[in-house]
Amino acid sequence: MTHKRVVMRRAGPPSVHRPVMIAIAGDSAAGKTTLTRGLLAAIGTDNISSICVDDYHRFDRQERKGLPFTPLNPACNYMEIMEQHLQLLAMGEPILKPVYNHHTGMLDRPVLFEPRDYVIVEGLLPLHSRLSRACFDLSVYLDPPESTRYAWKIKRDMRDRGYSEQQVRDDLRRREPESAAFIRPQRTWADVVVRFAPIEERGEVEAGLLSATVLLRPTAPHPDLTGILTADTREAIHLKLARDDDGKPVDALHVHAYASRETTQRVEEAIWAGLGIGQGLPDSLGLIDGDLRSEPLAVVQLIFLYHLLLARRSQGRDLEVAP
Amino acid sequence: MTHKRVVMRRAGPPSVHRPVMIAIAGDSAAGKTTLTRGLLAAIGTDNISSICVDDYHRFDRQERKGLPFTPLNPACNYMEIMEQHLQLLAMGEPILKPVYNHHTGMLDRPVLFEPRDYVIVEGLLPLHSRLSRACFDLSVYLDPPESTRYAWKIKRDMRDRGYSEQQVRDDLRRREPESAAFIRPQRTWADVVVRFAPIEERGEVEAGLLSATVLLRPTAPHPDLTGILTADTREAIHLKLARDDDGKPVDALHVHAYASRETTQRVEEAIWAGLGIGQGLPDSLGLIDGDLRSEPLAVVQLIFLYHLLLARRSQGRDLEVAP
Repeated sequence: MTHKRVVMRRAGPPSVHRPVMIAIAGDSAAGKTTLTRGLLAAIGTDNISSICVDDYHRFDRQERKGLPFTPLNPACNYMEIMEQHLQLLAMGEPILKPVYNHHTGMLDRPVLFEPRDYVIVEGLLPLHSRLSRACFDLSVYLDPPESTRYAWKIKRDMRDRGYSEQQVRDDLRRREPESAAFIRPQRTWADVVVRFAPIEERGEVEAGLLSATVLLRPTAPHPDLTGILTADTREAIHLKLARDDDGKPVDALHVHAYASRETTQRVEEAIWAGLGIGQGLPDSLGLIDGDLRSEPLAVVQLIFLYHLLLARRSQGRDLEVAP
Repeated sequence: MTHKRVVMRRAGPPSVHRPVMIAIAGDSAAGKTTLTRGLLAAIGTDNISSICVDDYHRFDRQERKGLPFTPLNPACNYMEIMEQHLQLLAMGEPILKPVYNHHTGMLDRPVLFEPRDYVIVEGLLPLHSRLSRACFDLSVYLDPPESTRYAWKIKRDMRDRGYSEQQVRDDLRRREPESAAFIRPQRTWADVVVRFAPIEERGEVEAGLLSATVLLRPTAPHPDLTGILTADTREAIHLKLARDDDGKPVDALHVHAYASRETTQRVEEAIWAGLGIGQGLPDSLGLIDGDLRSEPLAVVQLIFLYHLLLARRSQGRDLEVAP
């Protein structure tokens, strides 16, 4: 049995069976789950699955106490295993994913995760390395203002994880240097950067519906919006050529919170028509916490849905969304 | 970021960095650990690591209670993940290995395992599938008589796992159908089949030193023993052409427990000389439980060592053993 050549098994030709993968990166409580939920509903959970890559901790909570870093630090995580697992998923292979228990702070038994046609990978560091980035058909970075994110995190962690506001604030302060060092630098690698934020000059507040600014980098085949939108900033939805912080050109799509259903629908229909699918627009987009609807969120999710379906078609597959 | 081709990362050209891998398969308490120990000592644990692949359980002990199979059953294990991990190791990649806790019966947090130059993979089912078998440079099946294995298992499980003799016997009886169905069929895929057994007509007993019968299948480049051994069964070590149970031709090497150190040393020196290494024969072979020495065990381990080193050389690497 010597001199064997070992190659990874593949379920089939890569153009047929490999899943379409989208990364949704962002700091803790940046809105990843809300974004993901609408995509799962639109495509239908028979065909799409989501995975959080924040479980690749090297240390449990107890062990971390003596260590000089938070879970945001790559040194605190099995990054090479996260990369490996992303590569396996991109080839359509199952993984045995580690599990970090947020309640006990312990590392639990791993779980089997099998990719479906579409896989959403969300988490703190999915775009950290070149190897991990190469696994995605579309990469997204969520970039809310820190004040907005703090408000979301305090609300979420008090409700779901039983922390006091002071505990959450302490945690945020402890994490800030590593957030700056490792999380925020991922923004530059994203095809799409999304900022949900209150527009102060319009009197919007964090607790209400937020406007969205969507940077569309020319690294991905975005829907062509130039035919339906202008740079006129008096419009509730407009599209401006801009320079990003790094000086590079981007399209900046603005969807204001006050945009009417009719206005956004016109844009959504145009994006949707670009795919040429017989089915109508999914009505599961834009929902926050069940029934509250955000037009900016709907447009953002539709752009991601467009990319997922387009990438699927480029594999020669028929497109289908949830009925 | 569309249309990317995803290929698994490799640490380097496969001929340079991939580890030499040997499988030691066999039923519970067949002697895998004793065999492995001498190889680890001979090569030195800086360069060789061993891994047990019996931890890929789908269910913990509690969950198994309602299920119609024992851990010997592939259906009870994440076989596709075991295969995947073996393939990754064969490419020189690290894995995050699941952990089954024999004391608690629970699945614990996984551990990082990084392959060294040589990797010994031992366990119940490493030769179960074609995919897993393709990962090995040499595959071994341990095939003691069931009465011998039962004696070993009772001794080991009473000492290390706190079971009563009756509990171990009950467990063995429960496992027998699946042992026949899944473990023993692996024998046919092994390059080497080893049977340590007492030779009754010589009055040997299970508690004492055992003779070894080693079937060398022509599927691997075994050391040429025809120049130093004959088929004369009056010799303490002899080599006979034989038919295996499946009718296929094999070389059957017999090393009797009464073989003197001088007799085995002559054979060992001849095997060792075939490698042309400057260093002398490692003196860590043949040890059982620390100080008891078995000449048959030493010869068997040396044959495996020969294969490991030969496979390493075929990668163009210099050979070295522990000083």
